[in-house]
Amino acid sequence: MANTKRLCTLVLRLMAVAATLSAAVVMATSHERSNVLGLSFEAKYNHTPAFRYFVIANAIVTVYGFLVLFLPSKSQLWRLVVALDMVLTILLTSGISAALAIGSVGRHGNSYAGWLPICGQVPKYCDQVKGALIASFVGLLIYAVLLLYAIHNALDPLFLHKT
Amino acid sequence: MANTKRLCTLVLRLMAVAATLSAAVVMATSHERSNVLGLSFEAKYNHTPAFRYFVIANAIVTVYGFLVLFLPSKSQLWRLVVALDMVLTILLTSGISAALAIGSVGRHGNSYAGWLPICGQVPKYCDQVKGALIASFVGLLIYAVLLLYAIHNALDPLFLHKT
Repeated sequence: MANTKRLCTLVLRLMAVAATLSAAVVMATSHERSNVLGLSFEAKYNHTPAFRYFVIANAIVTVYGFLVLFLPSKSQLWRLVVALDMVLTILLTSGISAALAIGSVGRHGNSYAGWLPICGQVPKYCDQVKGALIASFVGLLIYAVLLLYAIHNALDPLFLHKT
Repeated sequence: MANTKRLCTLVLRLMAVAATLSAAVVMATSHERSNVLGLSFEAKYNHTPAFRYFVIANAIVTVYGFLVLFLPSKSQLWRLVVALDMVLTILLTSGISAALAIGSVGRHGNSYAGWLPICGQVPKYCDQVKGALIASFVGLLIYAVLLLYAIHNALDPLFLHKT
């Protein structure tokens, strides 16, 4: 039973690393050149601070997730991992939310502020950003599940074991 | 000792409620009318989905924080509060990050996407948004401290009590 749980956790963590790594790579490689009214126009992730932050956040979470994979299962450090999981989940949430907010202006624009949507001109770039956001969101969900599971184990908030 | 800790937690939670409440109110009342090239132009928080989300997130966290204030100190529900604190901290992080990303485009613009800054036209509105973001960030910091403290108590990740 304990081994199955450990294996489940390991598989989830491996999936989280894959998700945040692909999010960082897909976002960092996203660029498209387009011509608008004769003017050449390039869309690149590093033109937008929120997307740069997204890549950095996903890269940090990937490196952390990768290192945790090599932690021996009997290590006392697992207790520290819960606290670090929480901090990095917050970092990931913040990166996704910022990128999603900007991505949504890119797709829908904001007529009140006079910001025009750009996805019509650079659809491939927008799809790539969307893919990165989805991958990162999958990573976030996995970390949220791991965290809630750790809290459940440590504190039993729903009183499933004791009454 | 236990009473001092309980009082500290209560004061922190009271401060968090005040912070998220003022963030929601300041953001929800932010609006400014301005004339640009003879055209009347109104900036309002509900013109921007990210700001609406920010207000909703802060309102939810305020109501939750307010209810938790009335939880008896001996209640077994405090264990559930840790899990709920985590979920609401993630919600708050996401609201702040999205609003900050849009606020930053409002202040600095994004020349690559052709989005012009609007804070020159509506400085009062921008200052109000900034105030709301700062208040909400204070609330977030308090919840992060409460969460790390709960994890520390439950799991002792830094091995301060046991070796």
